[in-house]
Amino acid sequence: MTELKNPRIFSERTSVVQVEEGDVLAPKFDTDGLIPVVTTDARSGELLMHGYMNAEALQKTIEHGEAYYWSRSRKCLWHKGATSGLTQKVVELRIDDDQDAVWLRVDVAGSGASCHVGYRSCFYRSVPLGTRADGPLTLSYEETEKTFDPEQVYGDAPNPTKL
Amino acid sequence: MTELKNPRIFSERTSVVQVEEGDVLAPKFDTDGLIPVVTTDARSGELLMHGYMNAEALQKTIEHGEAYYWSRSRKCLWHKGATSGLTQKVVELRIDDDQDAVWLRVDVAGSGASCHVGYRSCFYRSVPLGTRADGPLTLSYEETEKTFDPEQVYGDAPNPTKL
Repeated sequence: MTELKNPRIFSERTSVVQVEEGDVLAPKFDTDGLIPVVTTDARSGELLMHGYMNAEALQKTIEHGEAYYWSRSRKCLWHKGATSGLTQKVVELRIDDDQDAVWLRVDVAGSGASCHVGYRSCFYRSVPLGTRADGPLTLSYEETEKTFDPEQVYGDAPNPTKL
Repeated sequence: MTELKNPRIFSERTSVVQVEEGDVLAPKFDTDGLIPVVTTDARSGELLMHGYMNAEALQKTIEHGEAYYWSRSRKCLWHKGATSGLTQKVVELRIDDDQDAVWLRVDVAGSGASCHVGYRSCFYRSVPLGTRADGPLTLSYEETEKTFDPEQVYGDAPNPTKL
């Protein structure tokens, strides 16, 4: 992988005013060289996933209009959908006020799913609110049916979830 | 601040199947003790902000039904809206497949804004796609009017944006 440490499309961060009120892209990557990414469905607005990009992933996403991420578990550039076919076409890409987070609004190919477990969204479970329980909370499933069988799609590939 | 390192509402992470397919809340905090949080407007679906929680912030958010975060710039628990009045009432709280990211769907009090710069969303600028420009990219403003004057609301408080 050729990592582009300082692609010319990114500007240096010179002042708080420039970062917040300016019109140049001056993203802040963390000490691991990553920036968090929020990916929503462009049509439904549903949150599909939360991931990370390095500079190369952000540059490729901008240039190709398809979502690229940095896989922290596999430690490699990750063209979303390369294995599953569930690519994410980027309809809009936004940056936040201090330019340390990215928002992708995407159209997902195929079944429209984005979660490796098989659900449409990675956020398929909700947490009960308002409880003052003195023990473990019980999650509720907001999606009840998987859209695909992960074993069929990913085979023996290692599961990205780490304890 | 009393940090609750291991509140009883959180379960230990014992297996990938338990984390992904189980019904217990077993969140993963990073090496700084934080978990990223995606906050969307419950009505419009718009992405408002990307923040972080520590265990105490997550517990308080669940118990009180209002959003608490960990401020990385101020290094303190942060009850969103305590200064501005723009509190976030949590309509739904979700956790992702590997339980290392949180999604809050909120109703914002007052003007409905969530960005310290004065905009409704922190993600008020978009990045041009498909370009193969060999120089700095120019951002477009997707929100053109601020909903409040940050100086009036925050006064001399230090700006949380860091270079």
